[in-house]
Amino acid sequence: MKEIASECLTKVRAEKPLIHHLTNWVTIYDCANIVKVFGASPVMAHAREEVAEMAGIASALVLNIGTLTSDFVQSMIIAAKSANKKGIPVVLDVCGAGATRFRDEKCFEILNQAKVSIIKGNSSEIARIAGESVSTKGVDASDVKRDLQEIARDLAAKKDCTVVITGKEDIVADEKRVVMVKNGHEMMANIVGTGCMAASVIGTFVAVEKDYVGASVAGLVCYEVAAELAAAKAAGPGSFKEMLFDAVFNLDAETVEKMMKIEEGLR
Amino acid sequence: MKEIASECLTKVRAEKPLIHHLTNWVTIYDCANIVKVFGASPVMAHAREEVAEMAGIASALVLNIGTLTSDFVQSMIIAAKSANKKGIPVVLDVCGAGATRFRDEKCFEILNQAKVSIIKGNSSEIARIAGESVSTKGVDASDVKRDLQEIARDLAAKKDCTVVITGKEDIVADEKRVVMVKNGHEMMANIVGTGCMAASVIGTFVAVEKDYVGASVAGLVCYEVAAELAAAKAAGPGSFKEMLFDAVFNLDAETVEKMMKIEEGLR
Amino acid sequence: MKEIASECLTKVRAEKPLIHHLTNWVTIYDCANIVKVFGASPVMAHAREEVAEMAGIASALVLNIGTLTSDFVQSMIIAAKSANKKGIPVVLDVCGAGATRFRDEKCFEILNQAKVSIIKGNSSEIARIAGESVSTKGVDASDVKRDLQEIARDLAAKKDCTVVITGKEDIVADEKRVVMVKNGHEMMANIVGTGCMAASVIGTFVAVEKDYVGASVAGLVCYEVAAELAAAKAAGPGSFKEMLFDAVFNLDAETVEKMMKIEEGLR
Repeated sequence: MKEIASECLTKVRAEKPLIHHLTNWVTIYDCANIVKVFGASPVMAHAREEVAEMAGIASALVLNIGTLTSDFVQSMIIAAKSANKKGIPVVLDVCGAGATRFRDEKCFEILNQAKVSIIKGNSSEIARIAGESVSTKGVDASDVKRDLQEIARDLAAKKDCTVVITGKEDIVADEKRVVMVKNGHEMMANIVGTGCMAASVIGTFVAVEKDYVGASVAGLVCYEVAAELAAAKAAGPGSFKEMLFDAVFNLDAETVEKMMKIEEGLR
Repeated sequence: MKEIASECLTKVRAEKPLIHHLTNWVTIYDCANIVKVFGASPVMAHAREEVAEMAGIASALVLNIGTLTSDFVQSMIIAAKSANKKGIPVVLDVCGAGATRFRDEKCFEILNQAKVSIIKGNSSEIARIAGESVSTKGVDASDVKRDLQEIARDLAAKKDCTVVITGKEDIVADEKRVVMVKNGHEMMANIVGTGCMAASVIGTFVAVEKDYVGASVAGLVCYEVAAELAAAKAAGPGSFKEMLFDAVFNLDAETVEKMMKIEEGLR
Repeated sequence: MKEIASECLTKVRAEKPLIHHLTNWVTIYDCANIVKVFGASPVMAHAREEVAEMAGIASALVLNIGTLTSDFVQSMIIAAKSANKKGIPVVLDVCGAGATRFRDEKCFEILNQAKVSIIKGNSSEIARIAGESVSTKGVDASDVKRDLQEIARDLAAKKDCTVVITGKEDIVADEKRVVMVKNGHEMMANIVGTGCMAASVIGTFVAVEKDYVGASVAGLVCYEVAAELAAAKAAGPGSFKEMLFDAVFNLDAETVEKMMKIEEGLR
């Protein structure tokens, strides 16, 4: 797995995949821009009349329920079914699951009506989707008692998908494998958008690599290595975000390989 | 009142209150992020099915009509009633009041159907809500003839709330008190979002302090002291905004106390 | 035409025109902010109950279909008809035309129901609106076989308007004239929002100058000269965008005249 991050980065830049998003209105710019600075091509479109066609010309679909409405979720499901038909991966960021019943229900509705390839969230969001009775503080994680690796693997098995739990250390799991990504910097938690961007990065990387666990790890490693480089120079969260975009754009394979910190298998 | 700014800042960082927003699509990121860099926790949610529940887990509710629709205002009213029931403060930014009849009517509808704790706007927006026949240039203030302190106090008395008029000098008033905040920098007027962020900052501070006049003053002072620090180093409005987020994040109580410029009572 | 860029810049800053937008949710902040840093006054409003009145107090209307829905396009048409009645220019950014049938149809619907003064897009978007059978990769341009100058002039003649094709070199044309704008920097293509901002800049400049070809050229020159200055100092796309806002704000007429690179007439 040591070379997958740099290999995927090279592929993203060469293939410039089109990543279709239906995402929230808070971080929609950041989601588009992180895809762009990685060298790929973002498009945001949510009208029910066009989402199937747009997903049909894309290489991956990213769904994020951060500012969901019922209509918006209907468009998500239409887009996801189109993506399923075309065989492209669907990433679902269960943003705010565990904060309201409505969010939980809509996540389950999406998961029941379409095939999601990667479910991504923070610890309490994923725990809620996995059936634990936890609450999320708006869109910020709260404590989860059960072991997170176990939750990730169980949910992955149940939904036959890859599960990503972001946090101080990220967990990427399917039914058989678990990988911990230990890159990143605490400054990422001091600014809005880093979680949402992680889902867009995963979408960008699974667009070019069919091993979704590997591609998700690769995307997170590249993104978080860039974050480490940015945080080392930033004077605070404002300058950090600008430097993060610069660092992703300027990232080279050698640096990624040198700084990559992952751990395969269970702890 | 000298210590309230630094005391509230400390409380915000310790308590990390959840601030629920229904705001405009232009500055929604900035509103979320200013809350985050102050150390609190923003959440943006507007679906009518979830706003009551989300407001119910929050410590303050911020409403901003910048890109309003009828449906959106309906969700605002549901959220505000939930906030009223829970007893948490509701901030209303009457963004663009005085520009169209629709905006005026919707502001009055919100104010009639729910209890708003703090009404915030620029001079012509607040004057319009107070019943003056003035026009707002889109969302930018135009001249108001009547004395602004008087307008603020009268509106505060009529609606039994706190009124904040932002501008070169800010006015914070309830029926009995008026405080002028004289911090800030002219660069704030050269970039989109500083007005909207002010409302989010007020929401963050009234979430931790029941004296709403004091908390509003405290929030504005901290925010505008940070703006002064950022403007001193910025090369223009672009770098100013990033440095503003850095400055808020790095702000310390001592600096706030030293740089604070307020004036209590009438001029 | 040598002085038009600096003259228009001076007029924008003196007159501070109000620019009403109905635009997409991805770059809405950037569109508002670029207008602001040029010294003008942006307002974003899309409720069908207020768009006619808001357009009626504005000096130009900018429409961008980047994240369109049917309802949103209805509001655009109402706003455009109000702008037509008042005699203010309407700019239409045909963002993503050629990506889905829905986008094409909605562009034609707007163009048929209201008078658009300036149609703006990248090469494949404009080619599609001009009737060529090309596809757009989401919102990113794809190759067009027919000569772009010819496409621009034909579309301008057919719709009696000004046509702007942005790209490495921009084409500004009406039925009789073609001007190439050769300023700008490749870094503009590495970040989301530069295309959308170009439409907002054009809206800002046509608000103060009735020669729409001249004003569009003037706006693009000022914007792209600022981009060259920013790119010369930026470490990547993140810092580039902040420096672009700084550079626009600090731009002086002399620099514009010195750095301006345009070519009149056909190649």
